[in-house]
Amino acid sequence: MNRGIIRYVLGSVIKIEAILLMVPLFTALIYHESEGKHYLAVALVCLITGSLLTFKKPHDSVFYLKEGCISTAASWIVLSLFGAIPFVLTGEIPHYLDALFETVSGFTTTGASIVEDVESFSHCSLLWRSFTHWIGGMGVLVFLLAIIPMSGGGSINLMRAESPGPSVGKLAPKMKTTASILYTIYICMTMIEFALLVFAKMPVFDAICTAFATAGTGGYGIKNSSIGDYSVPIQWIVTIFMILFGVNFNAYYYLQEKDYKKAFAMEEVRTYFIVIFAAIAAITFNILKECTGFFDALTKSAFQVGSIITTTGFSTTDFDTWPAFSKTILVLLMFVGACAGSTGGGIKISRFIIFFKAFFKEADSYIHPKSVKKITIDNKPLAHDVLRSTNVFLNVYILVFVCSILIVSLDNRDMQTNFTAVVATFNNIGPGLADVGPTQNFNGFSYLSKVILMIDMLAGRLELFPIIILFHPELWKEFLWRRDARRKKIQKMIDEKKTGL
Amino acid sequence: MNRGIIRYVLGSVIKIEAILLMVPLFTALIYHESEGKHYLAVALVCLITGSLLTFKKPHDSVFYLKEGCISTAASWIVLSLFGAIPFVLTGEIPHYLDALFETVSGFTTTGASIVEDVESFSHCSLLWRSFTHWIGGMGVLVFLLAIIPMSGGGSINLMRAESPGPSVGKLAPKMKTTASILYTIYICMTMIEFALLVFAKMPVFDAICTAFATAGTGGYGIKNSSIGDYSVPIQWIVTIFMILFGVNFNAYYYLQEKDYKKAFAMEEVRTYFIVIFAAIAAITFNILKECTGFFDALTKSAFQVGSIITTTGFSTTDFDTWPAFSKTILVLLMFVGACAGSTGGGIKISRFIIFFKAFFKEADSYIHPKSVKKITIDNKPLAHDVLRSTNVFLNVYILVFVCSILIVSLDNRDMQTNFTAVVATFNNIGPGLADVGPTQNFNGFSYLSKVILMIDMLAGRLELFPIIILFHPELWKEFLWRRDARRKKIQKMIDEKKTGL
Repeated sequence: MNRGIIRYVLGSVIKIEAILLMVPLFTALIYHESEGKHYLAVALVCLITGSLLTFKKPHDSVFYLKEGCISTAASWIVLSLFGAIPFVLTGEIPHYLDALFETVSGFTTTGASIVEDVESFSHCSLLWRSFTHWIGGMGVLVFLLAIIPMSGGGSINLMRAESPGPSVGKLAPKMKTTASILYTIYICMTMIEFALLVFAKMPVFDAICTAFATAGTGGYGIKNSSIGDYSVPIQWIVTIFMILFGVNFNAYYYLQEKDYKKAFAMEEVRTYFIVIFAAIAAITFNILKECTGFFDALTKSAFQVGSIITTTGFSTTDFDTWPAFSKTILVLLMFVGACAGSTGGGIKISRFIIFFKAFFKEADSYIHPKSVKKITIDNKPLAHDVLRSTNVFLNVYILVFVCSILIVSLDNRDMQTNFTAVVATFNNIGPGLADVGPTQNFNGFSYLSKVILMIDMLAGRLELFPIIILFHPELWKEFLWRRDARRKKIQKMIDEKKTGL
Repeated sequence: MNRGIIRYVLGSVIKIEAILLMVPLFTALIYHESEGKHYLAVALVCLITGSLLTFKKPHDSVFYLKEGCISTAASWIVLSLFGAIPFVLTGEIPHYLDALFETVSGFTTTGASIVEDVESFSHCSLLWRSFTHWIGGMGVLVFLLAIIPMSGGGSINLMRAESPGPSVGKLAPKMKTTASILYTIYICMTMIEFALLVFAKMPVFDAICTAFATAGTGGYGIKNSSIGDYSVPIQWIVTIFMILFGVNFNAYYYLQEKDYKKAFAMEEVRTYFIVIFAAIAAITFNILKECTGFFDALTKSAFQVGSIITTTGFSTTDFDTWPAFSKTILVLLMFVGACAGSTGGGIKISRFIIFFKAFFKEADSYIHPKSVKKITIDNKPLAHDVLRSTNVFLNVYILVFVCSILIVSLDNRDMQTNFTAVVATFNNIGPGLADVGPTQNFNGFSYLSKVILMIDMLAGRLELFPIIILFHPELWKEFLWRRDARRKKIQKMIDEKKTGL
């Protein structure tokens, strides 16, 4: 294992966090909030730690998938560990594990909160919460790739470990260019949303936070009622942008390159919109009699479908009170998730396309046993490797899901709460149903359950393997073996010194 | 498509049903029940219909997987259509669709009932209900293969379509021999259970019905309290036999051949027992404080685990009132199911073994990218085809599951009821939780939901594809095209006659 490069990546990430913490710090200065000093303190700690870790350049900058996975998983964990400290220092979330839950939920763009009264938070903390969504949405390592040059091959392994979806599309031959393109699109779209929200008369601070949370498909609201108390035009702007941030960013790249044909030919994006329209139509008619009219039903249904399929998790209404059919659609959409290569979570539309195509191919083989049809996506044959890893993804997904539900059920809460709590965190959505519904929060769980749900959020955001790999016994053996070796070496040196005396 | 052979198989199956209906008829004679005449009438109708269909031998007795699937699916549907008639004629289930639900639930060994007071039924109807489990357990086509010689190849396609599990093991070179071996083991084990139950002082009639329902892993009880009111020794006999009938029958074949090494080396069977013991241990400790003592907890837990993992569905207690952890384990076991090649339903242990191995292989490839490890089952490399079809199975399983839940949720019952109703029927278990829990029944659903649940039961029992294929548009095109062709031919003949006049 190339430990040097992992250390170096971690150090760089922590240094970046120091810079990111300037954002809530400036907010505190603007609003004259004393909480700002805690953000400054943590930023300094990050700067020192990061500088120490990156002081020595690694000998060897090439790294493989294993190092990519470990760096990614470790980066996200470290990022959350530091990011949680300000909440404890300001006293807004007294217990560190709760603060960590809130921060992991932020960075993974889940938006599941343990906070009962979010309106009592200081401006800087509110902004930090929403800003974690924005950082987590596109990924901090993608950001790292965009700003620092990684010599040597293998940097795609970092991006592969962090990017959502079954396969990573290289938009440009160099990873640095691809990462820059993605971040440029991301920043522009966030700014457009912010401008539109301000234009629709949302207060500037609210607009910044909401734009961050929408862009990252996170879902932390800064009001106890989430987006419910804002005007209908604002709700529609948020709806549209949630859906737009769930689109595969490659589509935007093609659009910007004026390659309209390629952009509109993307099967995944087309399927994504079909699913959205179908779900909105079904729910609108199902909730019609509980709303004040067709437009009201459409507004609520579109908002909730957009919020759930993109795994944002905002709410304008308590959908836990909706009829069973609508609730079932929402729970199913929680699993579906957004497009690959977007900021959304879930299993991803592209995987479902692969599953469906594999099914139809198999069904055809019953009727025409001799036909040899290949599965194609966007008219290109699907690589056998992608099909295999998609299937394994599903197996692991189910495995992690089942283990999580079992452990969480030890709290002896009702089954719908346990089930949707895992669904909502594992797919990075936020609210579930029943006791974790949109008007409730996650504070009722034991710390064991909270830790499991944190692992779920990380596993969901990083698409399972980077986190799962951390539990691989061979890594631990390697780790412990090295520690033993080092200890023996030190012991030997001491012994030699003693003999020398 | 070879329609001749499909017709012939269907005719034979209906003739067999005429013979099977003699069993409730004799019961009626013994208990002097007037309901017997209805069974006689239906038997005669079956005999005549079957004879008409088998009157002409098919030209060509070779058939492929397509014909195998269609024959199997059609046989099971026709079997249920006829088998439901007596319940309506006796007036015990007034509505035909309800009677059909009960019969499909019987043949598919589900045991989900719409009957509120089963103790009001006549003996002959009770026996017929339980007997459908026994027939469905091993499969009527396997029976057909055991008694009538199928010349030509392709009879394995019938067995493949009907047998549970990812791959069919041929125990003997000839399908007829394999089928006979399986039925011999099945009959012997049923008789042993019956003898033990009578020895434990269960009334003879009850023992027959219970043995049938256990052997088929069905779960229709003849008491409103299922097995709850019988003595503890009887409960343990049923527990042990439920678990035994969930074992891959190949193991018994090896045992009988004194090939102990092969029998005990079967990975699936070993995993099956490990899962059972783990689940029993976990639940026993979880429900301890609600029981009168350790043995009471163990008895209840062992019974329920055996009942659920083998998808039998008997109950001795209302497990809907158990703690969330125990209920979660039971719901998970509902999906796991028994071994392939047993009479049980569910996804099957062997498929989970394949999923796990594929996962570990993938995880290893992250650590050792260059290793080329093959997945092996029982020390034999797993065929690529089996891996692929197992993965497709999972995809289709999820697809059918999702569609069913969506449609059933239109009834607007609570989500736990909808979810577990589909789980319990699709995996051929019987009772679910909440409003379809062990003390409840399925009568509250709309007829649309009942039809969907019937399709689920059939799809679950026949392992999806034989039923799914029936919805394939090409089959319908072929069917409609032939009908059109025939109609045109007749029209042409009429036209010619008219011109002739």
